[in-house]
Amino acid sequence: MNISQPYLLFLGDVTDPLSAKTARGIVKWRPEACLGQLRLTEDTVSLGLTELTLEQAKQQGVKTLVIGTANAGGFIPRNWVETLIAAANLGLDIASGMHQRLTDIPELTQLADQGLIQLFDVRHNDERLAVGNGKKRSGKRLLTVGTDCSVGKMFSALAIEQALQQLNVDARFKATGQTGILIDGRGISVDAVVADFISGAVEALSPEFNDHEWDIIEGQGSLFNPSFAGVSLGLLHGAQPDALILCHEVGRQHIRHLPHAQLPTIEQTINANLLAARVTNPKVQFAGICLNTSILNESDAKELCQQWSEQFDLPVTDPVRFGVDSIANKLKTL
Amino acid sequence: MNISQPYLLFLGDVTDPLSAKTARGIVKWRPEACLGQLRLTEDTVSLGLTELTLEQAKQQGVKTLVIGTANAGGFIPRNWVETLIAAANLGLDIASGMHQRLTDIPELTQLADQGLIQLFDVRHNDERLAVGNGKKRSGKRLLTVGTDCSVGKMFSALAIEQALQQLNVDARFKATGQTGILIDGRGISVDAVVADFISGAVEALSPEFNDHEWDIIEGQGSLFNPSFAGVSLGLLHGAQPDALILCHEVGRQHIRHLPHAQLPTIEQTINANLLAARVTNPKVQFAGICLNTSILNESDAKELCQQWSEQFDLPVTDPVRFGVDSIANKLKTL
Repeated sequence: MNISQPYLLFLGDVTDPLSAKTARGIVKWRPEACLGQLRLTEDTVSLGLTELTLEQAKQQGVKTLVIGTANAGGFIPRNWVETLIAAANLGLDIASGMHQRLTDIPELTQLADQGLIQLFDVRHNDERLAVGNGKKRSGKRLLTVGTDCSVGKMFSALAIEQALQQLNVDARFKATGQTGILIDGRGISVDAVVADFISGAVEALSPEFNDHEWDIIEGQGSLFNPSFAGVSLGLLHGAQPDALILCHEVGRQHIRHLPHAQLPTIEQTINANLLAARVTNPKVQFAGICLNTSILNESDAKELCQQWSEQFDLPVTDPVRFGVDSIANKLKTL
Repeated sequence: MNISQPYLLFLGDVTDPLSAKTARGIVKWRPEACLGQLRLTEDTVSLGLTELTLEQAKQQGVKTLVIGTANAGGFIPRNWVETLIAAANLGLDIASGMHQRLTDIPELTQLADQGLIQLFDVRHNDERLAVGNGKKRSGKRLLTVGTDCSVGKMFSALAIEQALQQLNVDARFKATGQTGILIDGRGISVDAVVADFISGAVEALSPEFNDHEWDIIEGQGSLFNPSFAGVSLGLLHGAQPDALILCHEVGRQHIRHLPHAQLPTIEQTINANLLAARVTNPKVQFAGICLNTSILNESDAKELCQQWSEQFDLPVTDPVRFGVDSIANKLKTL
């Protein structure tokens, strides 16, 4: 997928700030790509961007209207459709992370079929993929892995991309999930591909390269999550990472949504990922640990990072609180 | 999928005996389900079954015409289509393991839409699945795993089902691939589901039960195959096996089709599978090793099985040469 930027972020009539997480992510990591926001009501959550009508957006060079909100069920509300059709009629592409496909809206499909606009359903995958082969590819790759889902794998990858770029290292984020794809405008939703093609999808996402230094690949799930571990293993093999970053939320009691499923220890997570990753890259190593320490106060968090850093002989940080410079500096030595 | 038996096996005009492997598998494991064969030419490979016309087949109670052959590319040859349409017009269901979908043939789709017949494209999955959750389910489960693809995981599972039944143990084969599905008439092609649903598909395939003793689940791929390991891990988690059977081809030099990819050792395969399987079943254990010893002469094969049996403290056999009674007897004690 290749979504044209800059964006107009569409917030619909969503009033719950949590529902605008995707839009916030885009603004945080790609502020230069966000020319403005479009809200249907006064009460709708705001990202603090310039309010633009569709016409103003078009005039200012916006290429794509992005649905930057989520809702339970993933259906596109009927009162949003009018705006989407109006945007498409102005020639704006539309990108959506909703479960319901944009291509299910006949007016949009018609314009897309005429080649006037493009529709991007980032939660789905219609690309033809090849089966992975695990052959060594040139270029250095980093993959974020985790003890579970939703422990900061995307955030850490984007933070590491940014920190490396600030050290003048040419690093490129590679998105594997819908939010990451909307942020970067590119990527493959690996959990949406047919199971046979998981590693092949990642090989296509991060092919051989020698024009930059690092691909920073967003991880998904966990080898220990009984719902999604297949995706995580295929992603690990396809990424053939040189460097792994372990992500973990301090204080999590069990696998997300599954009270009966135990969280692995840090040691188990490190060992299982190294063992599996060696199948496609015998030289793989861990290069850092990113913690979500939000349940701790700042000094306890600092102390924990310090302590684990000695225990695991790796840079350990909370990317939100302390940044990832320590990890970026280590990566420069690899 | 639930394909009605008995079958008429359709061999088209295939002359290469290897291309009729699927049909042979059906005849071997479910002879009672095969009322006859239909060949388009005199040169077409024969399964030694009664030759039946479509009309005779219908009269004798055949429910489904099964395309029991494979060809490069997976496309349904144009000169077969006439026969398929004639079969459908007689009210026979059609099942196919070809890549090209039966539903791409308008005449067939029309009859299916009218509810007159059912079409089964076993290589594809259109069922709605739930995400797996790894919750403990009642009933005992066995899964065949391997050092690689094509090392006898389906054959071993079917042989173990048969051997247990001969010991009056109610064991039921659960198919996870296209050939297995055509043989048993039921199953889910796990490599064809969307990646997020691999373990969920296996949980649906082998739900909680207490009306029989064992589900014998067909494995796929290998944790060490860089093309398909994601499928293997999701399958392992979803199966939550009590017993694992390791399958291996003696003398294989490298991962199939990938000369650069090393085959794991038996010890590595055992350890990696136990480690991963414990995520959903801490009590998992290996219950036997099934070898394809076809490169050895019979006495060397016997000696190797003996030797490995002592080394790994497990029943070790070649299911084709020596059967799997030793494994079935061990399973009776679990």
